[in-house]
Amino acid sequence: MRMIDLIEKKQHNQTLTEDEIKWMIEHYTSEDIPDYQMSAMAMAIYFNGMNNDERSALTMAMVESGDQIDLSPIEGVKVDKHSTGGVGDTTTLVLAPLVASVGVPVAKMSGRGLGHTGGTIDKLEAVPGFDVEVSQERFVELVNQNKVAVVGQSGNLTPADKKLYALRDVTSTVESIPLIASSIMSKKIAAGADAIVLDVKTGAGAFMKSVEQAKELAETMVNIGEAVGRNTMAVISDMSQPLGNAIGNGLEVKEAIDTLKGHGPEDLTELCLVLGSQMAYLGGVGSSLEEAREALEENLHNGKALDAFRTFIAAQGGDASVADDPDGVLPKAKHSQDVTAEETGKVSEIVADQIGIAAMMLGAGRETKESQIDLAAGLYMHKKIGDSVEKGEALVTLYSNKEISEDVISKVRENIKISEEATAPTLIHEIIQ
Amino acid sequence: MRMIDLIEKKQHNQTLTEDEIKWMIEHYTSEDIPDYQMSAMAMAIYFNGMNNDERSALTMAMVESGDQIDLSPIEGVKVDKHSTGGVGDTTTLVLAPLVASVGVPVAKMSGRGLGHTGGTIDKLEAVPGFDVEVSQERFVELVNQNKVAVVGQSGNLTPADKKLYALRDVTSTVESIPLIASSIMSKKIAAGADAIVLDVKTGAGAFMKSVEQAKELAETMVNIGEAVGRNTMAVISDMSQPLGNAIGNGLEVKEAIDTLKGHGPEDLTELCLVLGSQMAYLGGVGSSLEEAREALEENLHNGKALDAFRTFIAAQGGDASVADDPDGVLPKAKHSQDVTAEETGKVSEIVADQIGIAAMMLGAGRETKESQIDLAAGLYMHKKIGDSVEKGEALVTLYSNKEISEDVISKVRENIKISEEATAPTLIHEIIQ
Repeated sequence: MRMIDLIEKKQHNQTLTEDEIKWMIEHYTSEDIPDYQMSAMAMAIYFNGMNNDERSALTMAMVESGDQIDLSPIEGVKVDKHSTGGVGDTTTLVLAPLVASVGVPVAKMSGRGLGHTGGTIDKLEAVPGFDVEVSQERFVELVNQNKVAVVGQSGNLTPADKKLYALRDVTSTVESIPLIASSIMSKKIAAGADAIVLDVKTGAGAFMKSVEQAKELAETMVNIGEAVGRNTMAVISDMSQPLGNAIGNGLEVKEAIDTLKGHGPEDLTELCLVLGSQMAYLGGVGSSLEEAREALEENLHNGKALDAFRTFIAAQGGDASVADDPDGVLPKAKHSQDVTAEETGKVSEIVADQIGIAAMMLGAGRETKESQIDLAAGLYMHKKIGDSVEKGEALVTLYSNKEISEDVISKVRENIKISEEATAPTLIHEIIQ
Repeated sequence: MRMIDLIEKKQHNQTLTEDEIKWMIEHYTSEDIPDYQMSAMAMAIYFNGMNNDERSALTMAMVESGDQIDLSPIEGVKVDKHSTGGVGDTTTLVLAPLVASVGVPVAKMSGRGLGHTGGTIDKLEAVPGFDVEVSQERFVELVNQNKVAVVGQSGNLTPADKKLYALRDVTSTVESIPLIASSIMSKKIAAGADAIVLDVKTGAGAFMKSVEQAKELAETMVNIGEAVGRNTMAVISDMSQPLGNAIGNGLEVKEAIDTLKGHGPEDLTELCLVLGSQMAYLGGVGSSLEEAREALEENLHNGKALDAFRTFIAAQGGDASVADDPDGVLPKAKHSQDVTAEETGKVSEIVADQIGIAAMMLGAGRETKESQIDLAAGLYMHKKIGDSVEKGEALVTLYSNKEISEDVISKVRENIKISEEATAPTLIHEIIQ
């Protein structure tokens, strides 16, 4: 087989076979295929796409390029959730204990990464004592015991995807639905998922700017999942404004606890129930999504979800009293400041990505791999789109351990608009199953 | 400027500016832009094309990437000819002295290269004593004296094109009209041409398989030429069967001499008159292509074209008596063998590229850079498409200094078809000016 012939096939819109894709990914991972050929292939895929057989073959070839986590010693259907990424996305912190509380095992490997805030792993480290470095054996033991554990990623998962992603990043081939879909699905499958729930975000704060694009990506991933034997469902959810009210590591832990007590922000609670019911249903709870949802709602109100959170935190060495006294246990910022409304009206726009950047400027996220995260930093939105506000009322409170600069304040002010009329955006655009 | 932004522009079908293209080629030549970004760009150009401003900017950026030959000390308009390459293409050997004989300077730098036969330089070396290694000063002097000189390429011409071509060759991006056109035009302009005549071949033995493709390439090059101030004309000519009757270095020299005497093969003579009249007209001979052609036809019959050939050969140290006694002067093959017709009828097909490969197998061309050429080797076609043939009559005579293998004989036989009826293909499909 020669790579140039495969490039030519794709360039002429012919279908690559499973063997060809496997050969290509194997030889790219082993560096027998140079970057300049793979970038030409990626650009040809950008233009001509891939059909479901090709996407599934690419996904599995990337899974097989490295280590695969064996979750078979864990009883039950292992359901993993993936979000395509947004601003103030606290869902994993809520979903892990919530879904565990109805008996579905949540064996979650999570990352740190760059962005507006840290990853789930960073957020959990805001709880004193919480340990994310757990051996593979202990991980399995914890999930079998408590139905939930969240640990840092270990092992050499999907090296082909890492190499290809780095190349796509510098050759303008990130924006390709088959490549995005295969990349996400390969990571979930290599991490041992039996079933997968996808939260595809759309809007200003998301990678997929339109509902149509998001839907195409979601359907593509659901089709791959079905083709490779992993039950997969997806939700298209709004990311025109940030999700929930808190953006920042410690702040989001507190918000997650509120939500597990049944009095979290409306949008975060609803999205967690929608995603959670898919996870629970795929995990065997109830005979419909509705039944699964009922079970989850019950546990939000009877304290079982919060109990699962306490157990989960304590099992990984964390201070479980955070569940009852978050303000006393979580890190506190030295500085805080309100950004107030300059007019009376209704909040009509909160530009998600810009507000996320403001949180990062306060210290909540990493700009480069070397950046240190301030776990207490971030912001709290008192108002969301559609809410009424009086002139002088606080829109947002900013938190940081460094002096809060005028730059951040004006960035926040510029990116929250007030008008006479406004209504809250649709939270759930579509459910794909 | 960042290469990724330029890739993204082209990917989204936006126009690159002259400055952007210049920056890209400069930084690619200096290796500041890596191959993997340039191959993604080449693939984006394959899909989205380039407009005439972009193609012209690319051409000139490649010209400026290396040395440029200064032909200004030569009096008159320097017209260069380029052929996109075929089998048995003896035109340069005829055109150089023929066009010089009407007073238009022909300052030709030519290559060796790989292929069915050697390049023009190799062919001329079949004449004992002929020297292709001539200094730049002597080259100018020869053309001013005799109106013609043909020398080997020197200097570092269009290094960007060399680098880009090598990359395209391994990333399936050779087949892109804007990239092919800019590559050809940059080489001619860097070699000092004031005006350019293009022979774009089409058919089985050519890179452009259809007349439409050939026409698109020719028009693209003519447009570039006009945009960068080089008068350019083009001919779309047939390469479904080899041109002329001879394929091989010494054999083609003999055929060129026959043609300069006015009794060459009909197709070779006609093509030389068409291309020659464009060269002569662009060089200032006559007030129309017809008048230029008349001047050339006259010199084919009054001996002046052959005189120009004699002078040209002698000036570069060659044995000019070759003009009067080619068989006595040119190298002779130890072995020769006829391939005869197995049935009576008309020749209906001579598969150009396969016959070319047969010539190479006999020793006429280089398969790798290291191959030694047998200047006496090659083949002579006694019949062309449309000619009648009797069973047992010689179709082709093969020549070689090594034993002639059965493989070559059967390759030739398999690639010449005989039918009941057949007509000669159209030689000149189109003239673009």
